[in-house]
Amino acid sequence: MSLESGTYSKGLEGIIADETTICRVDGPHGKLFYRGYPIDDLARHSDFEEITYLLLYEKLPTAAELEEWRTRMRASRDIPIEVQIMIRTFPADAHPMQLLQSVIAYLSVYIKHTIQHSVHCNCRDTLHQIVQMASVVATSFRFRTAKAPYVSPRMDLSHGGNFLYMMRGTEPQDYEARIMDSCLVLHAEHEFNASTFTARVVASTMSTCYCSIAAAIGALFGQLHGGANERVLDMVEEIGTKEGVGAWMDKAIAEKRKVPGMGHREYKVRDPRSYVIEEYLKELSEKKGDGRYYGILKEIEKQFRERMEEKGKPVYPNVDFYSGAVYSLLGIPKILFTPVFAMARVAGWLAHVLEQREHGNRIYRPESLYKGPEERPYVPVQRRA
Amino acid sequence: MSLESGTYSKGLEGIIADETTICRVDGPHGKLFYRGYPIDDLARHSDFEEITYLLLYEKLPTAAELEEWRTRMRASRDIPIEVQIMIRTFPADAHPMQLLQSVIAYLSVYIKHTIQHSVHCNCRDTLHQIVQMASVVATSFRFRTAKAPYVSPRMDLSHGGNFLYMMRGTEPQDYEARIMDSCLVLHAEHEFNASTFTARVVASTMSTCYCSIAAAIGALFGQLHGGANERVLDMVEEIGTKEGVGAWMDKAIAEKRKVPGMGHREYKVRDPRSYVIEEYLKELSEKKGDGRYYGILKEIEKQFRERMEEKGKPVYPNVDFYSGAVYSLLGIPKILFTPVFAMARVAGWLAHVLEQREHGNRIYRPESLYKGPEERPYVPVQRRA
Repeated sequence: MSLESGTYSKGLEGIIADETTICRVDGPHGKLFYRGYPIDDLARHSDFEEITYLLLYEKLPTAAELEEWRTRMRASRDIPIEVQIMIRTFPADAHPMQLLQSVIAYLSVYIKHTIQHSVHCNCRDTLHQIVQMASVVATSFRFRTAKAPYVSPRMDLSHGGNFLYMMRGTEPQDYEARIMDSCLVLHAEHEFNASTFTARVVASTMSTCYCSIAAAIGALFGQLHGGANERVLDMVEEIGTKEGVGAWMDKAIAEKRKVPGMGHREYKVRDPRSYVIEEYLKELSEKKGDGRYYGILKEIEKQFRERMEEKGKPVYPNVDFYSGAVYSLLGIPKILFTPVFAMARVAGWLAHVLEQREHGNRIYRPESLYKGPEERPYVPVQRRA
Repeated sequence: MSLESGTYSKGLEGIIADETTICRVDGPHGKLFYRGYPIDDLARHSDFEEITYLLLYEKLPTAAELEEWRTRMRASRDIPIEVQIMIRTFPADAHPMQLLQSVIAYLSVYIKHTIQHSVHCNCRDTLHQIVQMASVVATSFRFRTAKAPYVSPRMDLSHGGNFLYMMRGTEPQDYEARIMDSCLVLHAEHEFNASTFTARVVASTMSTCYCSIAAAIGALFGQLHGGANERVLDMVEEIGTKEGVGAWMDKAIAEKRKVPGMGHREYKVRDPRSYVIEEYLKELSEKKGDGRYYGILKEIEKQFRERMEEKGKPVYPNVDFYSGAVYSLLGIPKILFTPVFAMARVAGWLAHVLEQREHGNRIYRPESLYKGPEERPYVPVQRRA
């Protein structure tokens, strides 16, 4: 096809890049399914380890499979000493996402090169990437923020619970572990977003699973992708009190400032994940006796909705609107919000890498529309103006 | 746009992903232009440092600008001690592309985080990535293959010449330095190939230049992207002698084996870079008194063309057909071929990242076509078959 006859769509909007059986976003009805299962059911009844199995094996495991799977995942939790050194010696002012990208590229060496680089590479054997991501995020907090020693993992805790344990060094409450793990379920997968698409483009060259995941981490680090929940929390801190919301909102709307955590490119109605995560925020606020975040957020939501309804443009909160406050109440600092997103989404990334390698039959190679200078002769440096 | 109404093109073939002013491939006429300048002119009269300027600044530098630019590039050649340690301690059986990906993610820490992560990040200030790539590839060879000490860079050599110097520890001949540098010019840029597209997707999220480049390295590592020149050399070694070509070719054609280095998705006639690189191979073969590679390659080319012409399907050699032999005669081992590709292409990648950040106005977010299971209820583990 010649360039002139190509279809041009900015950001590839509306262009179908490939087929998938992993996830479906039903934007008009505000629904999200992993392998056909509604996100609410999964968030309330499943857990991150089971979801990882579902995403990678296309089905829910039997009791025996799940048992074996949990044992396998948990056996990968401890961080090899070389990686501990890497985390410790990584420059202190680097963002943990940069550390994560570097570590994932490094982790690949624990799998024999000939296996991982083969066309028949079984990405399922690279599961330790998923597990280690959580351990690395927790440990980067220990070493860099808390200046505290390494905490060896606990094998009896859920994936989310163990993350809190390795980060804090003390056992989390049961409800904290449950909520943390469920947040990972909520963020594990979301179709062809930019980071997942990045992972698939890299996988389409038949590069390794690790290279694909490291690339996806790079994309998630982008301000337009990860980071919205940090900005929500910045807003809450800027407003300060429930009473301050009205004046702030008037000003924000007058200045046409974007209210973070509101609206979603894919969902025409409310993001289904936002209902679940709002419940968690409510529960955490009650149990911890700290309703400040929740009060301010509900007030922002109410006032923003009223103002948008006046304009006939209803806008609803998305998952990021509440997640930052949830993480904050769990003791996770803002700088770890995007890394926590990565340690959930890596399950989806790996499922997409697997699907791309097994069923995607073409390297991604779009066209570009050339708008540069016409052919011109090279001019030696002495004759340049 | 709903999923059903989307345009579906496997591998995004024929889909225009964005506008560009960097490079134009004229496939039907077998021409390649960087910023409007024909590749042959650039390969014969320019050099990698000037090309890097051209790609990043959209024009050829004046004498004064070029002087300043060379000084700036050369000042970044020496590898920081922390990165030397990283190269030395990286597991010996890891591929140098994995090392490169990890190092680039690390290099970002030499630029203040607030600068590099800003929307207004000036990717031109991250030039040291381009320079360091060559130094890291050379040093990975020193430490890992040659078990030899670090070689400090020479400031009087061209980019390509200094690469050979840092790799070998001895000064290259003038013609070797010239050919090496020109090979980097030939490989510096090639429009929206999969690795460049990866870099642009990551850049579209407003992630850092380093994250974008690290992602592109991951894509180039793919067997369907980099690595064709390794396979050409494998073929030459398998055939062994000029006289062996006929029998090998009969067998390969009977078995429908792909002949590596032949044909190109973009060029309908002969890849313009292949003419230039063939000349270099001829020159090197003569100067070094070793015509074995060249003899076998010319015979493969001749016999393959004759057989394809009989079928009415002319196929021509591409740049990879000769580049592996050129590198081999320059003393570069096969495992470094893809890293050498990366250290050339990084100039193009950075130009695209810059263009995407400055002019690309949309995050890449294509659609997918869901072919998975319909909505189904979650089944507790006890009740699963």
